[in-house]
Amino acid sequence: MTGSLTIVGLGPGEPRYLTPAAQAALDAASDLIGYGPYLDRIPAQSGQTKHASDNRVEIDRARHALELAAAGKRVAVVSGGDPGVFAMAAAVFEAVEAGEPCWRELAITVEPGITAMLAAAAAAGAPLGGDFCAISLSDNLKPWEVVTARLEAVLHADFVISLYNPISKARPWQLGKALELALSVRAPDTPVLFARAIGRADEALRILTLTQAYEAAGTADMATLVMIGASGTRLIAREGRAPFVYTPRSVTKSPCATSQGRT
Amino acid sequence: MTGSLTIVGLGPGEPRYLTPAAQAALDAASDLIGYGPYLDRIPAQSGQTKHASDNRVEIDRARHALELAAAGKRVAVVSGGDPGVFAMAAAVFEAVEAGEPCWRELAITVEPGITAMLAAAAAAGAPLGGDFCAISLSDNLKPWEVVTARLEAVLHADFVISLYNPISKARPWQLGKALELALSVRAPDTPVLFARAIGRADEALRILTLTQAYEAAGTADMATLVMIGASGTRLIAREGRAPFVYTPRSVTKSPCATSQGRT
Repeated sequence: MTGSLTIVGLGPGEPRYLTPAAQAALDAASDLIGYGPYLDRIPAQSGQTKHASDNRVEIDRARHALELAAAGKRVAVVSGGDPGVFAMAAAVFEAVEAGEPCWRELAITVEPGITAMLAAAAAAGAPLGGDFCAISLSDNLKPWEVVTARLEAVLHADFVISLYNPISKARPWQLGKALELALSVRAPDTPVLFARAIGRADEALRILTLTQAYEAAGTADMATLVMIGASGTRLIAREGRAPFVYTPRSVTKSPCATSQGRT
Repeated sequence: MTGSLTIVGLGPGEPRYLTPAAQAALDAASDLIGYGPYLDRIPAQSGQTKHASDNRVEIDRARHALELAAAGKRVAVVSGGDPGVFAMAAAVFEAVEAGEPCWRELAITVEPGITAMLAAAAAAGAPLGGDFCAISLSDNLKPWEVVTARLEAVLHADFVISLYNPISKARPWQLGKALELALSVRAPDTPVLFARAIGRADEALRILTLTQAYEAAGTADMATLVMIGASGTRLIAREGRAPFVYTPRSVTKSPCATSQGRT
């Protein structure tokens, strides 16, 4: 087969965060597939066809991309951030596994991008300075009990925690529950970031305490990356400016000793 | 103060993974500071001074950078991958907090980059398709008991696990112990990646089972990112080519049900 499929990470949004490798993959494509607002970020090129879809039908989008590639097109599936992190890459490989045997022989590649967690961390200082994890708070694809079991595990083990897909109209209460759980383990003044649309023109970084974050949960949205600090995560105060937020590289105590609630 | 300090993520290595924002930060610098091999990747520019150091003295390098910035230089501290992930950013903020009060008033920014975990995942398929974590296996800065407590927590909670700094001459046994621990919880055929120097000319991706990875622990090195799949992580076999590795987005069972050993 002569077609190809590349799943391209656009990064946070502004072109200055798009890698040259990702740009080259976009330039080489005959067909671009993705959620409309992501496609809108990419300047039109002659000879290229854009196939916009809404944000819900990832697996259909993946199959459409594979069909086009199998028909000989050079397809780029575009994804915000990094395509491997709660984005399109896993959906494409699910479709490959469940789909036509010939799809396995396609040239399928992934172009990494700056995921929201890295952009948010860079904007704040160095909150990911220690061990960290990333959890999707969406319970569309996994039971809520799995989400809470994972949250409890990493809260007690003192990871910095990045929450993707924290809240949506259809999932209004999950972020509050997650932060309530965090409050049962971590100190109330633990730094929490609400990092919205970092790397775009309308970016907004809020540095809160865990208590404040719990009270403000309803002000987050799907474009917000929520990051809960570990026990060591600290602020460096600055005159007239937002503090730096960072997590020291060193850990001197056992992770259990940092927990305030249940162990 | 007129000086500035930017901590710049070079990404995996090849220029095609360097973001335009990071490139602009390098171009604007009067002084570049970093571990020699990272500085060597950056073409010399007239009027720029390079300050190479060895890989061990991160905090000294950070202080040196801050002193130069306080003296009015436009300093770029270069870091492989993303500077916020087990790299230079946290060291700089540690130095800021412990150092001269005037350092807090400096313009200090972080330019994110593609971290090794994202480059490795992209090369393999979509192994980070579910919840995941990143742990530095180095016990230079934290007790080994903290490392193992964290590993046990995320093994039982069924995260995909990326291990940074897996092995070095001074730390020869830690990776084997970590994989032994993984074998006590996860199935022996769990996919494990040994992803060495991905995004550089000499890149090498090995796709192993957990048992094979345990036996091959001694063949990893400091340039290797080790990724341990979750219970759902799968291979898609391909004729005459390496399989794709991916983690489905959906989880249907409780994380505890996936564990084979201690709970």
